[in-house]
Amino acid sequence: MDPFLAACRGLPHERTPVWFMRQAGRSLPEYRSIRGTGSILDAIADPGLAAEITLQPVRRYDTDAAILFSDIVVPVHAIGFGVDVVPGVGPVIERPFERTADLDRLRPLDPEADTPYVLETVRALASELTVPLIGFAGAPFTVASYLIEGGPSRTYARTKALMLGDPNLWFALLDRLVDLAVASLRSQVDAGAGALQLFDSWAGALAPPVYERYVLPASRSVFDRIADLGVPGIHFGVGTGEILHLMAAAGSDVLGVDWRVPLDEARRRIGPDTVLQGNLDPAVCLAPIEAVDTAVGDVLRRNGDHPGYVFNLGHGVLPETDPAVLEHVVDLVHAHRPGG
Amino acid sequence: MDPFLAACRGLPHERTPVWFMRQAGRSLPEYRSIRGTGSILDAIADPGLAAEITLQPVRRYDTDAAILFSDIVVPVHAIGFGVDVVPGVGPVIERPFERTADLDRLRPLDPEADTPYVLETVRALASELTVPLIGFAGAPFTVASYLIEGGPSRTYARTKALMLGDPNLWFALLDRLVDLAVASLRSQVDAGAGALQLFDSWAGALAPPVYERYVLPASRSVFDRIADLGVPGIHFGVGTGEILHLMAAAGSDVLGVDWRVPLDEARRRIGPDTVLQGNLDPAVCLAPIEAVDTAVGDVLRRNGDHPGYVFNLGHGVLPETDPAVLEHVVDLVHAHRPGG
Repeated sequence: MDPFLAACRGLPHERTPVWFMRQAGRSLPEYRSIRGTGSILDAIADPGLAAEITLQPVRRYDTDAAILFSDIVVPVHAIGFGVDVVPGVGPVIERPFERTADLDRLRPLDPEADTPYVLETVRALASELTVPLIGFAGAPFTVASYLIEGGPSRTYARTKALMLGDPNLWFALLDRLVDLAVASLRSQVDAGAGALQLFDSWAGALAPPVYERYVLPASRSVFDRIADLGVPGIHFGVGTGEILHLMAAAGSDVLGVDWRVPLDEARRRIGPDTVLQGNLDPAVCLAPIEAVDTAVGDVLRRNGDHPGYVFNLGHGVLPETDPAVLEHVVDLVHAHRPGG
Repeated sequence: MDPFLAACRGLPHERTPVWFMRQAGRSLPEYRSIRGTGSILDAIADPGLAAEITLQPVRRYDTDAAILFSDIVVPVHAIGFGVDVVPGVGPVIERPFERTADLDRLRPLDPEADTPYVLETVRALASELTVPLIGFAGAPFTVASYLIEGGPSRTYARTKALMLGDPNLWFALLDRLVDLAVASLRSQVDAGAGALQLFDSWAGALAPPVYERYVLPASRSVFDRIADLGVPGIHFGVGTGEILHLMAAAGSDVLGVDWRVPLDEARRRIGPDTVLQGNLDPAVCLAPIEAVDTAVGDVLRRNGDHPGYVFNLGHGVLPETDPAVLEHVVDLVHAHRPGG
């Protein structure tokens, strides 16, 4: 059985699978040479380019999965909410979400009509790849935080003020974003994606009772509504130690853990059968190779012989990462036999 | 006994004490009207101005402690490392710390000669205030992160690469920063500060084993070397749930907790006698007043009748906070009787 898919199911497999969040992108010279200077949203809308960018790291690193070159704001951009992705900044929203009337700016996504380029990219990749393709979407909370804050935030203050201050509007917003995520994820699987990751990157900014009440139901709804697709679902966020048990309750097959929670501690907390993905600190990859060896060894040791584990970083590859270091990490992980 | 000092010692007291990190500053109109447009480092160097800014929130809110208007980069700035604090950005370092030779740029601090204005401010406040004055310093890790990154960071990648890649240089750097923090803290108490807070604001970015090996010894050294002063020491960081037990081992009297770890859970984890400070999410103060009431009530309920608790936010007051909300929070907290 394919090692990545087997690990996602907690089933025995031959080698510990590995892929890296943001494995496609700025850290690769071959990416920089073909990427051009336009918006990333333009690159995503070019299926030939997006497919090639998706393939680059698989070729170079021999990763056990590919992840679609796309962005979590693609669906809201595609339905005309008014989003750009500014280099060095991130998503920027022309007119942030503020009031009930803004709900009308979030119409349902028709993937074939609104994001045909995504589906064309996925189809091309599905026929070319020999490893599974991971499709993805932004989780309702994380996408909502961009729409409300107008861009990246350190505090999520407006988002929290809206959820606490106007719960009806908050839940109505999340309902729309659940629909968008589900439509996008289902269409990616229809087109050939073999696994799905829900990025709730910033959920760790929330107090556990707040996450449980205002966010978890929406994320659970996404996983419920993709469960019939038969592909593994991965649930990811950073700084999520305090809400890990709640994120686990959303119903994914695999739970992402950043570097703050050691793998053995995560399983102690959530349950011994939990399938995990992560958890090397991306910053470690900027340190000398001996430090990388030690850190990778520590992650693998803490996983022990548990078959339910996918090696990854705890967050995306940093742009200044030397690809040779990631090549070395892949070699180390592949040399490690699960169960041995 | 003074409620704040009693709570710091876990002793019985009459009313639950409260103060707010960044209670002095941009959220107050009276601050904006006297602050002027120069660098914050210039305002700190003006004892009349700095004392008045320190007093403003005590007058307005009736807080149970004042915190010195200063900045964690003041000592490194004062010894000529080349630091500015840029509005809307934070500390910016002219020539970041990179190599062994940069250690020579970190000479010992002579507080009377290098930061006479700080001591003058503290002396003026000590004679005027009727509540304790909290002096503070940046913890070695957090200050090091600014010196190495050259400014605020989201990843601390260079800092981590240096600590993992050149531990000798890292520990030599931290030794210098321990000396700076200790000299500064001791001088503040000599001048009249009645409590001390060590800000390790960004320590939560570290994996627990990394914190334990590369950071904890330095922070413990700071607390060891101020223990004889007889004033309570507070240890603070954000996103520290996974390292809370390690931070507790550094030897402070009080442990700060942000909003991610409920107070009852923190005591379950660290021990029932732990004295805590925090943990209202600052973003809650931007929500409608009913949501503020609920959140403050939840914090107080989770503390129960434990005498070892100082109410605070989990991080600094957000600049856009309405002071009327903080006035209301103080009223709520003061209406709550510890032990009843």
